Amino acid sequence: MSGSGAGGDGAAAPRRRTVLLSGLAGAGAGVAAGVGGALAAERPAPSPDTRLAAGRASARAFRGTHQAGILEAPPAQAAFVAFDLHEQADGDAVRRLLTVWTDDIERLMAGRGTLTDLEPELAAVPASLTVTVGVGPRVVELAGAERPDWLAPLPAFPEIDALEDAWGEGDLLLQICAESPTTVAHAQRRLTTSVADLASVRWVQRGFREPFEGPGIPMRNLLGQVDGTVQPDVTGLDADLLWVGADGPAWLRGGSSVVVRRIGMRLDAWDRADRAARENAIGRRLDTGAPVTGGTLDSAADLEATDELGFHVIDDAAHMRRAHATAPHERFLRRPYSYDDGVEGGGMRTGLVFVAFQADPARQFVPVQRRLAQADLLNLWTVPVGSAVFAVLPGAGSGEVLGQAMFA
Amino acid sequence: MSGSGAGGDGAAAPRRRTVLLSGLAGAGAGVAAGVGGALAAERPAPSPDTRLAAGRASARAFRGTHQAGILEAPPAQAAFVAFDLHEQADGDAVRRLLTVWTDDIERLMAGRGTLTDLEPELAAVPASLTVTVGVGPRVVELAGAERPDWLAPLPAFPEIDALEDAWGEGDLLLQICAESPTTVAHAQRRLTTSVADLASVRWVQRGFREPFEGPGIPMRNLLGQVDGTVQPDVTGLDADLLWVGADGPAWLRGGSSVVVRRIGMRLDAWDRADRAARENAIGRRLDTGAPVTGGTLDSAADLEATDELGFHVIDDAAHMRRAHATAPHERFLRRPYSYDDGVEGGGMRTGLVFVAFQADPARQFVPVQRRLAQADLLNLWTVPVGSAVFAVLPGAGSGEVLGQAMFA
Repeated sequence: MSGSGAGGDGAAAPRRRTVLLSGLAGAGAGVAAGVGGALAAERPAPSPDTRLAAGRASARAFRGTHQAGILEAPPAQAAFVAFDLHEQADGDAVRRLLTVWTDDIERLMAGRGTLTDLEPELAAVPASLTVTVGVGPRVVELAGAERPDWLAPLPAFPEIDALEDAWGEGDLLLQICAESPTTVAHAQRRLTTSVADLASVRWVQRGFREPFEGPGIPMRNLLGQVDGTVQPDVTGLDADLLWVGADGPAWLRGGSSVVVRRIGMRLDAWDRADRAARENAIGRRLDTGAPVTGGTLDSAADLEATDELGFHVIDDAAHMRRAHATAPHERFLRRPYSYDDGVEGGGMRTGLVFVAFQADPARQFVPVQRRLAQADLLNLWTVPVGSAVFAVLPGAGSGEVLGQAMFA
Repeated sequence: MSGSGAGGDGAAAPRRRTVLLSGLAGAGAGVAAGVGGALAAERPAPSPDTRLAAGRASARAFRGTHQAGILEAPPAQAAFVAFDLHEQADGDAVRRLLTVWTDDIERLMAGRGTLTDLEPELAAVPASLTVTVGVGPRVVELAGAERPDWLAPLPAFPEIDALEDAWGEGDLLLQICAESPTTVAHAQRRLTTSVADLASVRWVQRGFREPFEGPGIPMRNLLGQVDGTVQPDVTGLDADLLWVGADGPAWLRGGSSVVVRRIGMRLDAWDRADRAARENAIGRRLDTGAPVTGGTLDSAADLEATDELGFHVIDDAAHMRRAHATAPHERFLRRPYSYDDGVEGGGMRTGLVFVAFQADPARQFVPVQRRLAQADLLNLWTVPVGSAVFAVLPGAGSGEVLGQAMFA
């Protein structure tokens, strides 16, 4: 099974946030609970030395129906790396690249150096490392496989987009996630150098999440907003919202798609909005993430509730109302990371690497994004500066190479 | 005492690496042990929920003889932020800035938002946050205080330097360290915006350390090298190597100095050096960090040992030999962080933010750096691209403002 923990001990799944916090070796066992939200019984805490060993040893399984790095609770550190194939690349080059990466990734996720790795010590701490491979349209074309219609740049959202080429598209994507920044840096470097004769880095987006987030808080972004609150039940009833099924290209069954949008935050302007204005813009309370109509984080929002003047309590342009699915298929699995890059010469480069997985972005993601582009109070403080879509390859079974079905 | 844990519970100090790993609230209690290396008895591991709460609550003390962020075991995440005072700044502007920062830092380290903080939720996870303030010569001059001779740019090291203005000097420095990247980002932003009318960001250097490092390994940098092996006993016999004493300016007693050098790594070239060449260049084994003359990480190197041909076993230009103190005062406390910044347009920007604290950099640091510049095999693969020196203010006692003695 994809994402089951190689370091697991078969005991009951630990709580998701505990896993995130402590980097326990058994983390993978909690995957299903992590997304679905079901929490199993806790087990006694290990001793400090066990924790240390477990944190180092925490390895996730590479082989499976699906790639790792999608269902797991997102670790604290990530790098999203897009590559361009060299100009003269052909189908054989794609096959060689994916063969190299398959071997590299399997080794790195197990805490071993790659084949020619001269610093295997930097690989020895897998720390829940996952590496997830996506491909762009050129790769599919070179492999001679059927391109899904949605594997193309998203439609323009002229109301909001300020896209920069520097953060757009690419032939290949690596999503590298781990609890350790050193592990991410080393994996990124090895996976880049091992295919240097075939592809070059197009962009890198580093991201982070809060490792000490409180129970039930999925993620707090740098606006202070609780983010990624409502997720589909992708390990249960909504699995077909995540994985490409029988109606997709045969080579992509068990795969998915990923949308990576770099969303800058205008924090100087945000600083001039008080708490009431912020909560009105989001439609949720800043402290608990609960809808402004009351309840807790998980409560349904009362979109019809009105105040004494007859206005909606949740603003007609509140982010939450505009993002709310108007049909069951308008949902997708979000796995965002914050970014806060250094500056040269003043100012701040801060925002969110928005990451969404879904079977069909045109059908699931685009209608929601279109509503948000047309009206979303948060647009006053956010600017999309990058956008990319990739097909996420199915998992590699025993002896298989990632993406081999593209060549069938 | 500086660095004693506000969140501590009075129990025995946990082991340094356990603290780093788990972010326990009692972390501060282990500070002295962290640098000196003495390890106290372990206590039973807390339950997962206790760990979560403790990770969030972990707060270090702000008030004390020395500033926090020097003696503590370095947390996993850091930002080094240099500021330029605005052109028209005078002594009063400096005083106002330090007054604001004193209040901001005390609040943030305690897990509270700053005075005008609109997202105090992002401050609620102190995660061992420390903020350490340094000042450049212009600040000292504006305050009307005596400038120590060493508070100036380091002498040039023309053999190796490729310094860029973008990473050089500055009027003020904030060293912001925490186990949580969100905590660092929020503190950086609040401390930047709260003095925006007085000073502007000159540069930001983000860094990280391995949160799951093995017992006894101080730090592994992105060359794979065990770094920061031999440290002075700054909480014991070597305290005068760290803190400015009676022979320094009165306003700086209990303070220190910090050298921040940004050292790029030529990893493409490093990839072409095999393990033997690397160990020869460093003078230490890559796996354990022990001297190549044998023993363990903590063993003394046998600088006189020769091989069967009569050559030194530790190369005459090995980094370790050249860095070795030739006099007792040629030592300083190192607290380096790795960096691996994203790229726009290919290539990699990877290296080390070298950070050294000492009472007198001209006397302690410069002779070592001069030897390394003249001959150090590692210079083949490393390039200093930034250099800065700051005076580290003494700690603020109860009711005091950081740096107030400058105005005495």
